[in-house]
Amino acid sequence: MSLTGHNYIAGETSAEGAELFYSVDPRTKSRGDQAFYSATESEVARAAEAARVAYQQMRGFSSARLADLLDEIAAQIGALGDELLHTADRETGLGLPRLTGERDRTTGQMRAFADLLREGSYLRAIINSGQPTIRQMQFPVGPVAIFAASNFPFAFAVAGGDSASALAAGCPIVVKAHPGHPATSELFAKAMTAAVAAQGCPAGAFSMLQGAGIDVGQWLVAHEAIEAVGFTGSLRGGRALYDAAAARPRPIPVYAEMGSINPVVITQAALAARAETIADGLVGSVTLGSGQFCTNPGLVLLEDSAASQDFIQAVSAKMEAAPAGPLLNEAVAAGLASAVEQTQAHPQVSLLTGGEPSAGEAFCYRNTVLQTRAAAIRADQRLQTEHFGPVTLFALCDDADDLRATIKALEGSLTSTLHAEAGEEVEDLLGLLREKAGRVVWNDFPTGVAVVPAMQHGGPYPATTAPSTTSVGSNAIYRFMRPIAFQNLPDALLPAPLQDANPLGILRQVDGEYTDGTV
Amino acid sequence: MSLTGHNYIAGETSAEGAELFYSVDPRTKSRGDQAFYSATESEVARAAEAARVAYQQMRGFSSARLADLLDEIAAQIGALGDELLHTADRETGLGLPRLTGERDRTTGQMRAFADLLREGSYLRAIINSGQPTIRQMQFPVGPVAIFAASNFPFAFAVAGGDSASALAAGCPIVVKAHPGHPATSELFAKAMTAAVAAQGCPAGAFSMLQGAGIDVGQWLVAHEAIEAVGFTGSLRGGRALYDAAAARPRPIPVYAEMGSINPVVITQAALAARAETIADGLVGSVTLGSGQFCTNPGLVLLEDSAASQDFIQAVSAKMEAAPAGPLLNEAVAAGLASAVEQTQAHPQVSLLTGGEPSAGEAFCYRNTVLQTRAAAIRADQRLQTEHFGPVTLFALCDDADDLRATIKALEGSLTSTLHAEAGEEVEDLLGLLREKAGRVVWNDFPTGVAVVPAMQHGGPYPATTAPSTTSVGSNAIYRFMRPIAFQNLPDALLPAPLQDANPLGILRQVDGEYTDGTV
Repeated sequence: MSLTGHNYIAGETSAEGAELFYSVDPRTKSRGDQAFYSATESEVARAAEAARVAYQQMRGFSSARLADLLDEIAAQIGALGDELLHTADRETGLGLPRLTGERDRTTGQMRAFADLLREGSYLRAIINSGQPTIRQMQFPVGPVAIFAASNFPFAFAVAGGDSASALAAGCPIVVKAHPGHPATSELFAKAMTAAVAAQGCPAGAFSMLQGAGIDVGQWLVAHEAIEAVGFTGSLRGGRALYDAAAARPRPIPVYAEMGSINPVVITQAALAARAETIADGLVGSVTLGSGQFCTNPGLVLLEDSAASQDFIQAVSAKMEAAPAGPLLNEAVAAGLASAVEQTQAHPQVSLLTGGEPSAGEAFCYRNTVLQTRAAAIRADQRLQTEHFGPVTLFALCDDADDLRATIKALEGSLTSTLHAEAGEEVEDLLGLLREKAGRVVWNDFPTGVAVVPAMQHGGPYPATTAPSTTSVGSNAIYRFMRPIAFQNLPDALLPAPLQDANPLGILRQVDGEYTDGTV
Repeated sequence: MSLTGHNYIAGETSAEGAELFYSVDPRTKSRGDQAFYSATESEVARAAEAARVAYQQMRGFSSARLADLLDEIAAQIGALGDELLHTADRETGLGLPRLTGERDRTTGQMRAFADLLREGSYLRAIINSGQPTIRQMQFPVGPVAIFAASNFPFAFAVAGGDSASALAAGCPIVVKAHPGHPATSELFAKAMTAAVAAQGCPAGAFSMLQGAGIDVGQWLVAHEAIEAVGFTGSLRGGRALYDAAAARPRPIPVYAEMGSINPVVITQAALAARAETIADGLVGSVTLGSGQFCTNPGLVLLEDSAASQDFIQAVSAKMEAAPAGPLLNEAVAAGLASAVEQTQAHPQVSLLTGGEPSAGEAFCYRNTVLQTRAAAIRADQRLQTEHFGPVTLFALCDDADDLRATIKALEGSLTSTLHAEAGEEVEDLLGLLREKAGRVVWNDFPTGVAVVPAMQHGGPYPATTAPSTTSVGSNAIYRFMRPIAFQNLPDALLPAPLQDANPLGILRQVDGEYTDGTV
């Protein structure tokens, strides 16, 4: 499929800008031939305005029609075939097996939202039939800006989870593609554009903007037509957008999923029972995808003991022996080197293995293990900096009190994990770990996020800017919806999900009872 | 009941400050004898720290225990007896009948949240029993700061809706009382403190801070222990807190319900059918509580015609004839006079009646009717300024297109209203009005907010800073909760609402089915 390097604005390609950038193969550091055009401010405005126009039509779409659009997108992504996998592999170095699975996940989440829409209870219809009669349900908020991540070029990118949930809500989207994989992004843009056209949706329902720097994103978030923002990426990037959105004359919400250190606590009993298994699991989780997961276990807390020392030694040896995969791009490699350097420079931190780039032509960093005392974490917040790569930091605690005090001092994460044995008194520990995360993992590892309705992929700041929302699972749709109530509106003028006869047969709360019947 | 004028911090009274202020009777402008102490920065910190400590205990409370606390608060408010009504009437001039009704509403919403907690489906428990097993439910976010409103000294104040929903969520609260009714606030603080003690809750579950200026609120929102903010009041006040919260090193959400002009559209057919009824209803709604409602209909849009001119004349005459009640306080009176003055000064606005303070010793303003052209509203955003008092602005439209364009140009409101006749083609108008509000009212008036689950009391900015949330109705609880998921956690370590046996018998979503059964 031929690439243009252009932006995709409401069904048309556009390349008005003078700033060009290129793909870089992270395995060879070689530049691709295709030039990509960073969007200009007027192209950003055109995309946002087209989304505003499209919204006037889309807000009248039924759930069933939106579901058809999502299914069509999944089909169009499938039709991209293996070219998608090879293009993404060249741009990210993530490998075909991982990318094949990620493609399935990406089309799977489109189809899962389609199923949610057809089932209908997600509308949260509530009817109170007194005087006055009040009926409410969820409606789309309007045009949404979405910022793609580098580390999931499919599942958190142009047609990723944020795009799926915003379109499912009925919101047109303007996606800022990640500059790390512009060719992959263009393939998705082609698929999305084709799906929008095939389903007879207004063209402004989807636009994709390329951009090498931060300007495109800042223009987009500042545009009056944009009503909400979805972002997956770094703390610095997410906070900058959050600040820009909050400073608008009319502030809008930013749902940013950012860095996370994902603390893991291992009890002495767990070590005694299965140190080897835990070590293998931990090394696998830390090195998965070269450690470039927002759920990567970056901090391991355990009480100081001979067993703990042995465990750390074993993990270090396994980390040293494990192959170091390529990092996504130069920015990730530079950021990782700088973050590890800062941590290593701390007087109470020692390096057990790694701590430097790997030899070879790829962007690559050695699997790295660092060690400190828990008290140092409490004393210096910089030791909670995320190392986005195959790195973990062990923090040894003097005793149980030291452990508890350190957990209390942690910033928010997407996940927290406890390895313990049945029968141990761990309610207190679990309670503390719960406060620090959106997902609490028991005797397992945090990488690998099941795409199921009960999943919560979120957490207290700085893991996200909106801990009450999720970016994975069916509840992700509510970031882009708001309730509207109707007072005394005649049945014929009500949206179908709120009509007396319940023509869609959906589950509703009617005068306090959950029912799929009529009023 | 004797008053102290002190702050109530975790069960103790405290008066460390040097800044004193007093109640003023709005009917006589006379100052009360009791001095009230604005809280100091260290008192604010003490209240926030006590809330943090209390949270460590409260986050383990069952829904049933929290429900008992809410019922106890309702009972303690009842035990304040008529002294509460007389005290509030002296401080607000709202009159005993209105205050009696508001007291019932206030205890009613405490008890309604208690019922919600006992029913249990509000926890939104979701269970996916695959591998891994993921289970999620809602948990409290932590200490909440609440800012009381002046215009509802019971229902949106110390023990008002925000306090009820935050405590129902399991969050300790620190309430900044409104300086317009400090004695009323102290009575509520006594009742809340007694209820917390009677139920054996940690004392830090409730604190109340007095304050004449903005310092107390700024200190409170900036305090590290505070996790969320509920606010009801002016756009300026709400936005200041929003900005302060967004600028924190760790930003927190501010759920501010602020000003609103609540547009009303009346079709020519509706005028032809029942002009007199609509005029009476409109005048009643504009003058209710001296117009001091956030849902006051402040803008009326209708096509220019002889019938419309007659209608405006009739409304003006009725407004002139209606008695003008006292305003809440000097700040409200001054703000209203200034806002009307600004609007009146606009070259395309004419004054039909009122437009000045009333004679007499009370803080009082004449019932006021202003008129302009719809095009002027579109051209000058200042014509969308809220007049917080018995004031409405008519905007005449050239035709249906002019009307639609003007609705599109409106800022967000809590409500929008349409008066039309059965059989008229109004889907398009309703669609436009829906985009501008959280509640769409049909052939009725927006004042009077039914406290039912389906109520949505919210709306796009500047009506609120969080259009996807509500401050009235059972969903108000979700402002102060966040979901947490558990991965593979053994049954015995799960919170009761997520255990296999469903010991609380609540409605849950299990593998896609809604059921109150076991897993």
